[in-house]
Amino acid sequence: MRIIHSIHEMQTIAKDLHKEGKTIGFVPTMGYLHEGHATLLKQSRAENDIVVLSVFVNPLQFGPNEDFEQYPRDSERDESIAQSVGVNYLFYPTSTEMYPMPLATTMTAVDRVDVLCGAKREGHFDGVVTVLAKLFNIVLPDRVYMGMKDAQQVAVVQGLVDDYNIPVEIVRVPTVREEDGLAKSSRNVYLTDQERKEAVVLSRSLELAQEMIHSGETSAESIISFIEKEIVINTSGTVDYVEIYAYPTLKQVDVLEGQLIIALAVRFSKARLIDNTVFVVHANKGEEITCSVQ
Amino acid sequence: MRIIHSIHEMQTIAKDLHKEGKTIGFVPTMGYLHEGHATLLKQSRAENDIVVLSVFVNPLQFGPNEDFEQYPRDSERDESIAQSVGVNYLFYPTSTEMYPMPLATTMTAVDRVDVLCGAKREGHFDGVVTVLAKLFNIVLPDRVYMGMKDAQQVAVVQGLVDDYNIPVEIVRVPTVREEDGLAKSSRNVYLTDQERKEAVVLSRSLELAQEMIHSGETSAESIISFIEKEIVINTSGTVDYVEIYAYPTLKQVDVLEGQLIIALAVRFSKARLIDNTVFVVHANKGEEITCSVQ
Repeated sequence: MRIIHSIHEMQTIAKDLHKEGKTIGFVPTMGYLHEGHATLLKQSRAENDIVVLSVFVNPLQFGPNEDFEQYPRDSERDESIAQSVGVNYLFYPTSTEMYPMPLATTMTAVDRVDVLCGAKREGHFDGVVTVLAKLFNIVLPDRVYMGMKDAQQVAVVQGLVDDYNIPVEIVRVPTVREEDGLAKSSRNVYLTDQERKEAVVLSRSLELAQEMIHSGETSAESIISFIEKEIVINTSGTVDYVEIYAYPTLKQVDVLEGQLIIALAVRFSKARLIDNTVFVVHANKGEEITCSVQ
Repeated sequence: MRIIHSIHEMQTIAKDLHKEGKTIGFVPTMGYLHEGHATLLKQSRAENDIVVLSVFVNPLQFGPNEDFEQYPRDSERDESIAQSVGVNYLFYPTSTEMYPMPLATTMTAVDRVDVLCGAKREGHFDGVVTVLAKLFNIVLPDRVYMGMKDAQQVAVVQGLVDDYNIPVEIVRVPTVREEDGLAKSSRNVYLTDQERKEAVVLSRSLELAQEMIHSGETSAESIISFIEKEIVINTSGTVDYVEIYAYPTLKQVDVLEGQLIIALAVRFSKARLIDNTVFVVHANKGEEITCSVQ
């Protein structure tokens, strides 16, 4: 594995790899790698000649109340994980390398951002699209691997790629789950034993909601109300949101058809958990055809 | 020459060309090709394996008072010129192909835009950077050829390329001039015979100003005042602006050093003409080293 700090060097290598006919799979991260990142890297390893991992804590995507300085960093551990899953190039630029001067052209995520978790993180996705637009030009990947745990981020980035005709494929990697269905998260350790048991309701209620739509339920309101009740009755957590949208446009839907997302966030005593499911409902049938996209 | 209307087809061809090790030179235009475009295309032809010309009248870069519908179009003539200078691919998309839906992520040119001609064309450069960000991803050029007649546009696009690490080289092509030095322009035909004779003062005053700096003049104000007087005394035109900036940042300079632009715009009875010169002044010497960048 080679560790690269220079944009110019990374871009030159990427260009040369393309000339050699190699495919590049890319996993952009902010480091402090966990099992979710490892899953992305393994899939990228399986599907591409070359795997590039970037580790860059992007100051632009931190809001005024989010502490950029406090974001956890552990470069040694990141390197060791990267090595173990077969990363070829670890791109590890400094902030000065990425943002040597104020941008003359700025990017603003104007759509898909003011719902779900984005509603409370103003400007966050501007930073995300800006850094990814840069990283895509630097790493020149064929495929970019992103976890569906953060389905809104995937939707925003798919919008960026579509809007600007960026020649990459965004590969949606399903959320990694515990045996009982709970989405894996570094925050799960903050749950009490009792909360941990209750938390299974999040993924289970999403599954049940999907089955209800499968069985002909046509009202988004009924679905949302069902999930909220499941959480209120079966857990000590409080519902932050339960929302249904078309995916990846994140637009409200009158009819539960096409590709949909049901997403939720629940606050427990010391952890806020999120989960979602993305699935396809065929027109005029109320029948769910596949969950394979999630 | 192949004419291509589909983004997907153009991008696929570009990718394949890179795999074959071919270099791509690109000239983006809004069509209605004139001698300036032909000059760009010829230089691109000489320096690359493959030449791509795009013709797209970009609605996003027209202001509310600028008539998109009235913009002249002549696709047959454009094709014939493209063919004659050896263009390999003419990319000719529709507006629907380029903008199938509202952008989820927008680009805003925030710097280098509120000076020179840009000062009166609010939002114009937002449209320019947006369409070029797309075209660069579609055509995947190694080199993009732009005329220094519109030096501000070149500066803004260089900013875009630098900010987002776009893997292209912006090649600055010198302004094509008449024998007496007047910058060629489709608007020159609107000059009266008398104005045409006077108009030589524009390029000549820029040359003289450059010589003054070369000879040790250190005051931007003196230079600007000299050019304004030259124009007022020797022509019937009225000065729209005469400005000096660092190039390509278009920032005001305290000391006349480094790469500089002197640019002017003058209104005649039925035509507004622009011209500029970009040159390098070495530090602490007042000595002009090269004009080769212009």
